[in-house]
Amino acid sequence: MLRAGMIRKVASWIYDWLPMGLIVLKKVEQIVREEMDAAGGQEVWLPVIQPKGLWVETGRWAVYGKELLRIADRKGSEFCFAPTAEEIITDLVRREVRSWRQLPLMLYQFGLKFRDEIRPRFGVMRAREFYMKDAYSFHADAGEFSVYYQRLFEAYGRIFKRCGLQFRPVEAVSGAIGGDTSHEFMVLAEAGEETIVTCAACSYAANLERAESAAESIPAANHADLLPLMEVPTPGVWTVEGVSELLRAPKSKFIKTMFYDADGRPVVALLRGDHELNEEKLTRALKCRALRKSQDAEYRDIAKCEVGFAGPAGLKERSGRADLLIMADHAVRSVINGISGANKNGMHLSNINLDRDYRPDAFADIRVSAPEDLCPRCSSRLNFSKGIEVGHTFQLGTKYSEKLGAVYLDESQKPHPIIMGCYGIGVSRVVAAAIEQCHDADGILWPEPLAPFGEHLICVETDDAEVLAKADALFEQLQSLGLSVLYDDRDERPGVKFKDADLIGLPRRLTVSRRTLQQQSVEFKRRNSAKSELWKLSDLPQKLQELTAPI
Amino acid sequence: MLRAGMIRKVASWIYDWLPMGLIVLKKVEQIVREEMDAAGGQEVWLPVIQPKGLWVETGRWAVYGKELLRIADRKGSEFCFAPTAEEIITDLVRREVRSWRQLPLMLYQFGLKFRDEIRPRFGVMRAREFYMKDAYSFHADAGEFSVYYQRLFEAYGRIFKRCGLQFRPVEAVSGAIGGDTSHEFMVLAEAGEETIVTCAACSYAANLERAESAAESIPAANHADLLPLMEVPTPGVWTVEGVSELLRAPKSKFIKTMFYDADGRPVVALLRGDHELNEEKLTRALKCRALRKSQDAEYRDIAKCEVGFAGPAGLKERSGRADLLIMADHAVRSVINGISGANKNGMHLSNINLDRDYRPDAFADIRVSAPEDLCPRCSSRLNFSKGIEVGHTFQLGTKYSEKLGAVYLDESQKPHPIIMGCYGIGVSRVVAAAIEQCHDADGILWPEPLAPFGEHLICVETDDAEVLAKADALFEQLQSLGLSVLYDDRDERPGVKFKDADLIGLPRRLTVSRRTLQQQSVEFKRRNSAKSELWKLSDLPQKLQELTAPI
Repeated sequence: MLRAGMIRKVASWIYDWLPMGLIVLKKVEQIVREEMDAAGGQEVWLPVIQPKGLWVETGRWAVYGKELLRIADRKGSEFCFAPTAEEIITDLVRREVRSWRQLPLMLYQFGLKFRDEIRPRFGVMRAREFYMKDAYSFHADAGEFSVYYQRLFEAYGRIFKRCGLQFRPVEAVSGAIGGDTSHEFMVLAEAGEETIVTCAACSYAANLERAESAAESIPAANHADLLPLMEVPTPGVWTVEGVSELLRAPKSKFIKTMFYDADGRPVVALLRGDHELNEEKLTRALKCRALRKSQDAEYRDIAKCEVGFAGPAGLKERSGRADLLIMADHAVRSVINGISGANKNGMHLSNINLDRDYRPDAFADIRVSAPEDLCPRCSSRLNFSKGIEVGHTFQLGTKYSEKLGAVYLDESQKPHPIIMGCYGIGVSRVVAAAIEQCHDADGILWPEPLAPFGEHLICVETDDAEVLAKADALFEQLQSLGLSVLYDDRDERPGVKFKDADLIGLPRRLTVSRRTLQQQSVEFKRRNSAKSELWKLSDLPQKLQELTAPI
Repeated sequence: MLRAGMIRKVASWIYDWLPMGLIVLKKVEQIVREEMDAAGGQEVWLPVIQPKGLWVETGRWAVYGKELLRIADRKGSEFCFAPTAEEIITDLVRREVRSWRQLPLMLYQFGLKFRDEIRPRFGVMRAREFYMKDAYSFHADAGEFSVYYQRLFEAYGRIFKRCGLQFRPVEAVSGAIGGDTSHEFMVLAEAGEETIVTCAACSYAANLERAESAAESIPAANHADLLPLMEVPTPGVWTVEGVSELLRAPKSKFIKTMFYDADGRPVVALLRGDHELNEEKLTRALKCRALRKSQDAEYRDIAKCEVGFAGPAGLKERSGRADLLIMADHAVRSVINGISGANKNGMHLSNINLDRDYRPDAFADIRVSAPEDLCPRCSSRLNFSKGIEVGHTFQLGTKYSEKLGAVYLDESQKPHPIIMGCYGIGVSRVVAAAIEQCHDADGILWPEPLAPFGEHLICVETDDAEVLAKADALFEQLQSLGLSVLYDDRDERPGVKFKDADLIGLPRRLTVSRRTLQQQSVEFKRRNSAKSELWKLSDLPQKLQELTAPI
């Protein structure tokens, strides 16, 4: 985007958008607006400088931490530069909506957001100041909301399809916005920072944070295969990597023992040594509100040994904590004659086996899914690919309406909190995502609906008055036909112009030169094709109009 | 705007814009965009969170004071929420423009601005967060810039004309933005906070801050009329009001003596007692950079008396300051046998006369113009009226390009600072100004180009299935004809609906009721007319299309 002259950097992760970049941004905006209107939305404009009070009411003044840009005005009143608008829209609706008759209602806006991210990156993809569409729907009835959520979900699909992008909606985690169900819309691109987990056999798709894996059916171990449990000295070595190297055993032979605090209760999570814990999934498996890693002192208090040497065998007895919950990932079942900590400093256990040596309180899917895991719906193998999150829909339920007191009166005048949905699209990010999906080594290949112009007209010999006059005339003619044309009449070498045309990536290139004019022609080339052809000047208007006619 | 449901208050001078308000805002935006494009502008989007460094380079980090909303990010880097964009656009251009070949260039944007005003007021008219179009032009040649400035000036005229507003461009003062020449575009409205000074005889027009007054030709006083100078005790009374009351003399008999510091030099300004000093005009008359009122100690040091008792007679001698400059407003000439301070505590002079008793170093037009003053161009009487500033154009010259080092190379590779112009329109303020100009006691009367909808359709008996069905059908039919219709099918009393229609102020009202349908008709009424008529349903589409056809 920098090289193609779409943006310029102003400060770290803050950008100017130049004319060509802005044209694309406006095209995305217009597609989004049309679909929001079609889904019954009404556009509003909410301020970006929002009073602290609303954010205190929902508790997010504290939750958001440093990502929230805080500001004091000349009187010392505190405000924030809004990273999202749940508070302010719910505040508006609580003042406007009284009765069930006023529902459902969907309001949306386009506007600046600022998130002071700890790790901004990828240019405008994760810039601090960005341009977003956020929509909020309000409902009296849960069933009606479900239907509406599906309608918005489909509108999102239409938006990205109309943008000409390959995308995939996936199940997602709600994060700081909250609510139960949420979906992310991912533009597929190798450079994407999100991992998408999909099933080729069924429609299951989720982001990595959310993705589930079915338990593999593991044949019970043959009793004859179980070797006797033994202690192995591993002085000063406590990581899976270290012990794996020391004992020359693969990581999949290990049982990792991790300590957590779930709403105040101690929890031990068991994982196969080659797997990673997914805290989001553990939280859901435990149905707890607040999950946090135990501090070293808490670990030592339970395992009675230094951090790194705990294992499941005899752990509950040793800890003396009757409320200790040991939860194992399903894959732990596959570890036969495994290795774990021995609950003694500098010691591990070899040949540890389920049932004989330890027994978790429960099994669950608590690990980060891995390629080749099984689909939770149909048990086929899962595929992993990369994507860029461009949209996110949330079923907020009554999270905000309860905290802010946004209620409606039903037909018998009884108050109920309003049910809410929330639907975001990172408009500026869509532009960057489109480029990530549609480019080659030479530059961008714009999908037609987002291309800043349709045709790239190059005049080769600008110093030849006759050639320039012909090219000028062609530029005028094409514009008068309603085509959108970028005209390169700079005094530059042809090589520079062709390179820039590839970089900018408009769908079609038209070259006028002394050579083509000798044949009363123009050279026509598509950006996505290597071959060019000569088109008669007389045929050009009709041919181009056919190519660009709406289907 | 609150009552008509266009905006809602979020915090002090920060507003939500509701759907109907936003439609109007977008209509203004689109008119402005078309005229900016027609004037050769290219739209960009510049960030609102701008790094402190740029503002330090131009010195405005200090100049702007508390109106500038300052912000620190998570790393402690300092930013501001931009109240205007000269710094950031000049920074962009200094990095992009190398050669005279790249000029002229005009860039513009629509965006949020935030000004933490000391006295925000009048709703969105002077809200802290507001929506603005700002444009910046860049030129190599002063002559070419003059022509371009005139072109933009005319584009501004077209914009407000296309909005359907009565307006007047006036000469103005450049203020914090800077530069030499500037013009304000005023929407005429009695509620306006700006005073517009115009000449009915010629085209002269200026805002009050800028307005000049021609010197009235004053016949020389007859020597016989000059009374002897005498000291009058005025113990403890030092204001013009107080002394005027004490001596029973009109304020126009007084000579006010005011002390200033101009770039370090002491200046005394003399004014007729019924006039006000215009510091802007004094600054220009003195050709000084920084003008400030003297402190009391400085006053006492020069006049050798307490504040309030200084006068021009013998002042320079008394002060012992050879560099003291005494500048009198032209109107001081008209004071015969006047009253002034005596340069002694508790004493005034009576019968003070020019030439005989004091002699200023210079005369100039330094007072705030007053009704009945003479036009500086043609010496006709000036008129005063009220307006709302909606646009401002500035000839910045090289103020910003010099400070930020924005230079171009001329044909012989010599560097020159780029000449700049700057052109703002308060888009959200235009909406409020339109209402101030176009309303009556019952509500708004939208000018056609800004009306959120053209037709206001009211169904009176919504509980009558037949009437409702007819009204529904009419709504569909009018929409399918491309008319924009607001349909009131609420279950409310007719009086409420008619009142709301007047409040919202759409140009045309259509009422469907049992009574009108008995005559196969609809009641048609214009918002700007008291009389209504019955139109046959069958004639309606054609009649409406004729009314709303573009001329």
